[in-house]
Amino acid sequence: MHDEHAIRSRRSEGEVILLSAGPGDLELLTLKAAKALAMAEVLLLDELVNPRIVELAPHARVIRVGKRGGCRSTPQAFICRLMRRYALQGARVVRVKGGDALLFGRAGEEIAFLRQAGIRVGIVNGISAGFAAAASLRISLTHRDHCHGITFVTAHTRDHGEPDWAALAATGTTLAIYMGMGRIESTAGALLRHLPATTPAAIVQSASQPEETQLLTTLGRLAADAQRSGLGSPGVILVGAVLAEASAFAPLPMSMPAGARVGG
Amino acid sequence: MHDEHAIRSRRSEGEVILLSAGPGDLELLTLKAAKALAMAEVLLLDELVNPRIVELAPHARVIRVGKRGGCRSTPQAFICRLMRRYALQGARVVRVKGGDALLFGRAGEEIAFLRQAGIRVGIVNGISAGFAAAASLRISLTHRDHCHGITFVTAHTRDHGEPDWAALAATGTTLAIYMGMGRIESTAGALLRHLPATTPAAIVQSASQPEETQLLTTLGRLAADAQRSGLGSPGVILVGAVLAEASAFAPLPMSMPAGARVGG
Repeated sequence: MHDEHAIRSRRSEGEVILLSAGPGDLELLTLKAAKALAMAEVLLLDELVNPRIVELAPHARVIRVGKRGGCRSTPQAFICRLMRRYALQGARVVRVKGGDALLFGRAGEEIAFLRQAGIRVGIVNGISAGFAAAASLRISLTHRDHCHGITFVTAHTRDHGEPDWAALAATGTTLAIYMGMGRIESTAGALLRHLPATTPAAIVQSASQPEETQLLTTLGRLAADAQRSGLGSPGVILVGAVLAEASAFAPLPMSMPAGARVGG
Repeated sequence: MHDEHAIRSRRSEGEVILLSAGPGDLELLTLKAAKALAMAEVLLLDELVNPRIVELAPHARVIRVGKRGGCRSTPQAFICRLMRRYALQGARVVRVKGGDALLFGRAGEEIAFLRQAGIRVGIVNGISAGFAAAASLRISLTHRDHCHGITFVTAHTRDHGEPDWAALAATGTTLAIYMGMGRIESTAGALLRHLPATTPAAIVQSASQPEETQLLTTLGRLAADAQRSGLGSPGVILVGAVLAEASAFAPLPMSMPAGARVGG
């Protein structure tokens, strides 16, 4: 009886933790994330999360709910219903998203759904891929010799349009472009109407992971170099003068004719 | 003799780890940061870092090198020389910065100095205050109903000018303004020339810490509400439609005449 009461009381105040898995290296999880994973009873995993994260959640039933652009995926509404079902059953539900859960990735919609269902939402921050990319390149994202800010932006808007590249270029901030590898040619082309072709640029794929790959180039050569190197999704595209700080330390100079690929 | 050789060999490949301390809650340190702290022999601490972080570095000599705007501070050149001295002595030097070390905070200059001195630089990412603020407000920074990106920007440029608020407003991205509490009136005034007074806005001070305070308001009332609430530096100012998602869950509605202060 006592147990049943305890379970009911947990049910009445269901909770879902939105947990940020970071860029891939599990050591970049926060201490708070590791604790939440250790207690998790149900884990809903996004596709881009390091699959070895389940080793940190030994008591959890694992449900994979990838939503990758262009691939077959679990509809958002179904993911929301799954979270609600397990939370109302009183389970410790942890919804795992790559990077920081609050940067892209539809956390907003999931939070709104859960709140409307009367379910508490806990959030555990994490490291977004753009920060991990900067760490790998050994650059500040906002070196004050070059800029005073950084903009994280997706390469396409919800209605399949494009962001206002003219305004973004005019800010003078470093640009970190997410979900942009699939349309890198049109994105680079759009930016070239507002920024010099010599603007330093980079792509970092699988930042923080053993298979990490970096490409240092310029905006003018970005699309061609990306294609030549065979870099694909997902990758973070960085554009701005701060990238020159990385090139100074690269084994291959930026004036190389082909993509100056460093690291690996 | 053997020991001396070992020390010399470590000396010849001196290393400094730039470590991100996150927004304050020590549980938001990464597992990687905790490991680096446990091994640290010399810790150079910025002023805005949670002072209890030293408990995670029991073997370290702690040197406080705060550089707070407007206060007496340790000159940047002296901090650089300290890092170089200890690194060349072969000590495990950990340079601790608040938030993510690569977002504001002069990491770029320190990296350049160390590289020129032939000292390896390791970087451990962390959670920047803007992300922790969003977690406290339970909002996505980039809810796709409202925007497709976020810009992190300082309220003043290196040459004591201002960023291009017109361009920043035109991007349609959420704005996370750092180091802006001291000039919130002029910043809000500048943004009001380009954004409606009804644009949702928030201030989060001490995000993730017990003394955290939130203020939810609109751009039109931002400066007055901040003054009325006695909020000061450091705080993160957030401006953009995504903030409306937070207000929906606030105990006080946004239409309250005074600053609708939630949490604490």
